[in-house]
Amino acid sequence: MTKSLADLRKDAASILEAGLEAADPERAVKASVRLEGEMLVVGPDYRLDLRGVDRVFIVGGGKASAPMGKAVEDLLGDRITGGVICVKYGHGLDLRRTRVTEGAHPIPDAAGERAARDIIALLESAGERDLVISCISGGGSALLPCVPPGITLQEKQDITGRLLAVGADIYEINAVRKHLSVTKGGNLARFAFPAHVINLMLSDVAGDATDTIASGPFVPDGSTFEQVLGILEKYNLTATVPESILSRLRSGARGEIPETPKEGDTIFEKVKNVIVGSNFLSLSAGEARAVNLGYETILLSSAIEGDTSEAAGFHAAIAHEVRSTGKPVPSPACILSGGETTVVLKGNGKGGRNQHFALSLVEKASRISCSVFLSAGTDGTDGPTDAAGAIVDTDTGARARQLGMDPDDYLRRNDSYNFFQPLGDLIMTGPTRTNVMDVRICLVG
Amino acid sequence: MTKSLADLRKDAASILEAGLEAADPERAVKASVRLEGEMLVVGPDYRLDLRGVDRVFIVGGGKASAPMGKAVEDLLGDRITGGVICVKYGHGLDLRRTRVTEGAHPIPDAAGERAARDIIALLESAGERDLVISCISGGGSALLPCVPPGITLQEKQDITGRLLAVGADIYEINAVRKHLSVTKGGNLARFAFPAHVINLMLSDVAGDATDTIASGPFVPDGSTFEQVLGILEKYNLTATVPESILSRLRSGARGEIPETPKEGDTIFEKVKNVIVGSNFLSLSAGEARAVNLGYETILLSSAIEGDTSEAAGFHAAIAHEVRSTGKPVPSPACILSGGETTVVLKGNGKGGRNQHFALSLVEKASRISCSVFLSAGTDGTDGPTDAAGAIVDTDTGARARQLGMDPDDYLRRNDSYNFFQPLGDLIMTGPTRTNVMDVRICLVG
Repeated sequence: MTKSLADLRKDAASILEAGLEAADPERAVKASVRLEGEMLVVGPDYRLDLRGVDRVFIVGGGKASAPMGKAVEDLLGDRITGGVICVKYGHGLDLRRTRVTEGAHPIPDAAGERAARDIIALLESAGERDLVISCISGGGSALLPCVPPGITLQEKQDITGRLLAVGADIYEINAVRKHLSVTKGGNLARFAFPAHVINLMLSDVAGDATDTIASGPFVPDGSTFEQVLGILEKYNLTATVPESILSRLRSGARGEIPETPKEGDTIFEKVKNVIVGSNFLSLSAGEARAVNLGYETILLSSAIEGDTSEAAGFHAAIAHEVRSTGKPVPSPACILSGGETTVVLKGNGKGGRNQHFALSLVEKASRISCSVFLSAGTDGTDGPTDAAGAIVDTDTGARARQLGMDPDDYLRRNDSYNFFQPLGDLIMTGPTRTNVMDVRICLVG
Repeated sequence: MTKSLADLRKDAASILEAGLEAADPERAVKASVRLEGEMLVVGPDYRLDLRGVDRVFIVGGGKASAPMGKAVEDLLGDRITGGVICVKYGHGLDLRRTRVTEGAHPIPDAAGERAARDIIALLESAGERDLVISCISGGGSALLPCVPPGITLQEKQDITGRLLAVGADIYEINAVRKHLSVTKGGNLARFAFPAHVINLMLSDVAGDATDTIASGPFVPDGSTFEQVLGILEKYNLTATVPESILSRLRSGARGEIPETPKEGDTIFEKVKNVIVGSNFLSLSAGEARAVNLGYETILLSSAIEGDTSEAAGFHAAIAHEVRSTGKPVPSPACILSGGETTVVLKGNGKGGRNQHFALSLVEKASRISCSVFLSAGTDGTDGPTDAAGAIVDTDTGARARQLGMDPDDYLRRNDSYNFFQPLGDLIMTGPTRTNVMDVRICLVG
């Protein structure tokens, strides 16, 4: 099959569309949860007979949690007793049975903490014949904050900030945060027990570790108080951490405070964790679409991080290989990847990492005949712009020069938005109210 | 098939071995050139009846060109009339019919220029019933320098250095160099015409563009004098370039000096260019071995460049995906890549880019169960060390900590050699007398 550049551009848009559909919170929940008579079926292998269920509660937190809750309400209607979901300010949605509250993100506030306490109370009221359906999405960690007695939200934020500053990795930061929380690290499962819990997650983290998505409120935690003390020591923070935090951690290490719930704990026996949407699932949907469009398709990885220009170079190297040797797959080829890269800002132009990715590929694409590269944020906004990303192809460089634009110059000034706008090559989706990180699509015809 | 970590390590070594064998200059030539009776067969589709050939000459330049010439002599024996090959100092080899000279690399010297002039004289003496077999390998550009009258080698080096300093890309630098040369950019083909030419190339350049390998002495050139003047102007070098160079370029642009030979020129009608060894061919040999060992194998790209740590992260992201979702291929999986990355030196430790690649993966590998990553330079020397590279696996981090070593600390000091040596995880091949850049092997069992 021969594909023209115009075909490739159309196909790239179609593949992105498939990926975005898979990440849509409502669609994602509906694709994973269904009713078969009185049987609630979740994913490929979980079935719960609703005749054994008295009440159904919806809880949740995260930017996309309201439409997730809506999908559950659409499915279960009057079976829902009630619920509480906390979303980011401006992301609210009126649900019929579930109270949707709004809180601050990414810096948590008291509104979020109130929602967390309401959820805890609701979970505590649930009995063994009750079902809790949890709708968790990116931002859920900040939107359901709840610190243990004696520690303030501010103190917790301070220590998180300091860990970030000294270069602690995400595993270390999460270990600390979970041990300074009443909700995170499986703690909500403790309150919900012995009710049934179906925890639906829309993942915005690379690798989709369930204990990382919104800090895993219903997921066993692998870290310990002792490790947390070790982390503070490693970064020489022990001396400057508030006494309130230190004494809690030390009590925990001595076994005076219960650990975060661990794998194998009975409280997880009735918990079903399901990822309903994720970068991988969006890439998989894109892969299916690409195969359907006739492409030899490779889903490279949903967890590509690192520097944006470097990532662009890797993708170009693979596309180049397709063109010159037919490896890793022959053309027409589709290489898909996801994750979230970072941009080192050097100029004060306008853009985002997806547009920067595309801009980094202008010259390289011009040397790979019949090639197209598209990168877009699934949330529909790339950096502080109204675009989700951009698309670049073999001819982009030539078209830019006709308009008097030098790609290198725009790269240096981090001004990708103003490069792609006159070319009509911005990807505009509008806000999608979801986030499963970025999707990159490389096509070689 | 289940593979243990020990299996993976053994298999990685075997896959590397297959790659190195394919890059061996003698083997590579013998794999591509053979005699069928009186018929000289080169690659899949070129056949030359030696009964129509009076004399056979061998010419060549590059670090690996002597063993390439030896392979040709082994094959054609007394049919060889004579020849000249220029290798790097210390890389000489006594051949029976071909004079092997030595010259300076990477900064050319008069010895190289003498060899180039001898080759030109030999090519000019060749008639239409003669055959020239050229053995070109990495470094051939510096080892066969020949500037046009009125320009000095020093002047040419100066302008190359200045182009590098202002950030000109390799295409631009090559365009300039070819237009200041009597040998490069297809010029040797002009001297060889009307003889038959079989140009055997061992490629050390990413992408294997034949016009780039040793600056393509027998390959049509796509650049022009006019473009070269444009490049000097682009980087504001026109005013500071010596008059000798500028006047040559301007004469060329006015058509007073012949252009470098172009695609379609009759002088290329009897020229057969064949890549006998390359990073891609080594990866392909590794791929065949991996498939044989039972791996689902992907040859990602032979042209991965950029920052070494970033490249490491990229490979880890793919290995992680294999482990968690079975994409891009299910385990046991083998991901192969090649090319040459760069290391930003921050410390004054001992190491090379391949060892740095492996060291960058210690923590990441520890989070991907049953994974192995190997990176090695095909020339057998990685940076200023006696190792070709290093191997890292899921357990390396734990083993290092038992020895009191912190990988991050060694990374910061660029001291990868001293990290891997006590672990016994350096890859030692000894000098291989070839170079097709680096090979990276990622296995997930």
